[in-house]
Amino acid sequence: MLLYVFDLMGVAVFAVSGALAASRKGLDLFGVVVIAAITAIGGGTLRDLLLDRHPIFWMVDSTYLTVTCAAALLTVVYVRWWPAPHRALLVADALGLALFAISGARIAEAGGLGPVIVILLGTMTGVAGGILRDVLSAQVPLILQRDIYATAAVAGISVYLLLQWLGVPRPVPSAAGMVAVAVLRLLAIQRGLHLPVVRPPQESS
Amino acid sequence: MLLYVFDLMGVAVFAVSGALAASRKGLDLFGVVVIAAITAIGGGTLRDLLLDRHPIFWMVDSTYLTVTCAAALLTVVYVRWWPAPHRALLVADALGLALFAISGARIAEAGGLGPVIVILLGTMTGVAGGILRDVLSAQVPLILQRDIYATAAVAGISVYLLLQWLGVPRPVPSAAGMVAVAVLRLLAIQRGLHLPVVRPPQESS
Amino acid sequence: MLLYVFDLMGVAVFAVSGALAASRKGLDLFGVVVIAAITAIGGGTLRDLLLDRHPIFWMVDSTYLTVTCAAALLTVVYVRWWPAPHRALLVADALGLALFAISGARIAEAGGLGPVIVILLGTMTGVAGGILRDVLSAQVPLILQRDIYATAAVAGISVYLLLQWLGVPRPVPSAAGMVAVAVLRLLAIQRGLHLPVVRPPQESS
Repeated sequence: MLLYVFDLMGVAVFAVSGALAASRKGLDLFGVVVIAAITAIGGGTLRDLLLDRHPIFWMVDSTYLTVTCAAALLTVVYVRWWPAPHRALLVADALGLALFAISGARIAEAGGLGPVIVILLGTMTGVAGGILRDVLSAQVPLILQRDIYATAAVAGISVYLLLQWLGVPRPVPSAAGMVAVAVLRLLAIQRGLHLPVVRPPQESS
Repeated sequence: MLLYVFDLMGVAVFAVSGALAASRKGLDLFGVVVIAAITAIGGGTLRDLLLDRHPIFWMVDSTYLTVTCAAALLTVVYVRWWPAPHRALLVADALGLALFAISGARIAEAGGLGPVIVILLGTMTGVAGGILRDVLSAQVPLILQRDIYATAAVAGISVYLLLQWLGVPRPVPSAAGMVAVAVLRLLAIQRGLHLPVVRPPQESS
Repeated sequence: MLLYVFDLMGVAVFAVSGALAASRKGLDLFGVVVIAAITAIGGGTLRDLLLDRHPIFWMVDSTYLTVTCAAALLTVVYVRWWPAPHRALLVADALGLALFAISGARIAEAGGLGPVIVILLGTMTGVAGGILRDVLSAQVPLILQRDIYATAAVAGISVYLLLQWLGVPRPVPSAAGMVAVAVLRLLAIQRGLHLPVVRPPQESS
């Protein structure tokens, strides 16, 4: 149930981010909605494919696509009349990252997978939608932002797993995990915060 | 049966489009064929993965890959000696889009999915091959063309569903749907036709 | 068993190549490890998805991810202090290509698929990880290198199939196939070797 709400919210915010990215490219209405939809369901679809969960979450319940279309259309209407809030795309992306990272982790965990795998699968679920959006709209993937991105997902899922392990009652671990991801990512954007970066290798080729 | 023919034709035209895109990059023969093959089977493969149809369509019947290789080789030979017809890539892509959009929609429909989902799945099936081709050949995805692209798939599938719903006998709805996609897309290319575009949001980031 | 070793080695070298590519972009430690992991498991994951082999190879056995993280971290530490060996990325990629092309081909063959399909599936398995890495790190895909790339996989898998067919005892065919892929690819890099390239079509669009 909670997972259902997470997915719906994640789908909505990623749809907004996809619509924002696509509308910047001057696409027509349907084009924007399609890219928003692919962005919104990308992460969860990858999660379901990897875990062999069929039918894919959005196929049996059209609520997801309804929410996606609604969110995309509202975004389009909004940016038609008003300037998008500063960094709207980055914020929507951060929330989607948080929601899908934890939902991916929870489902992987329910599948009885080990912690390392849960973290990777959750992170992949979180980043996939945004990567699809960036590839589809020919932008440099946000995952390449110097500031904390995948790291936020890894950290938040770890928080979730730790609290679970400590026996903290639900839904605290999930909530804490998502807050951790979102806060870390937003702080990173706000402050240009980033971990010590890996020094690029010196090589010719 | 009809579906089989659609898939074969779609595979052939996408193979041509993939071969054209790859040969522009000065790849060697095998490289061109591999990119053509991935382009050709990309859409149907995504469709089968999402709908959990195994084995994937091209695995059990090597006709698909034979057709793909033949189409790719003919394309390579052709462009070796003669200039490719003006906009050959765009036209081949439009036909592939039409064929796979409808085949994807039909298979999703056969799976008892709702109209909204049928439209999205059909559209994804139609655009996936071209997106793979563009990513593999490092081009800006055609889906970002300002003129009608995904919209053509959405419209054509809607025509198909409408005619089905009106009880029009087969294979009229499929044929009409594909014609709608192709004509819309080609008109868009020809006339630079496009729906009112979404005004890019004004924001700093 | 042998296949298991191939996969582990392939995962390790692709993790190195992913870590090298990601560290060039000045990502933080976790970001580098995540991209290395996605690169490392990309090819095998596609293979398992296409062949409907569940759970995906890295889900049941955390050795893969352990190896991936270890290889990525060592790479990061290495490039932190010493310059990466000349063309380290290209060499690691060539080895990963060889290992995954043959492992993909063997598994497809075990699935009773025909030679053409085995070759394509093996090639896709071999190139997928590298393509993911290049897309994730916003580089032009190595598959677009003018020198032999996909061709090396096609040739090596053909060698493997031929020796199998000739009844050469295992593990000779696999070993020979991998050596063929790697040697071809490395020679191509070394000598700028390439097959006669397809002349780009002359067209306006």
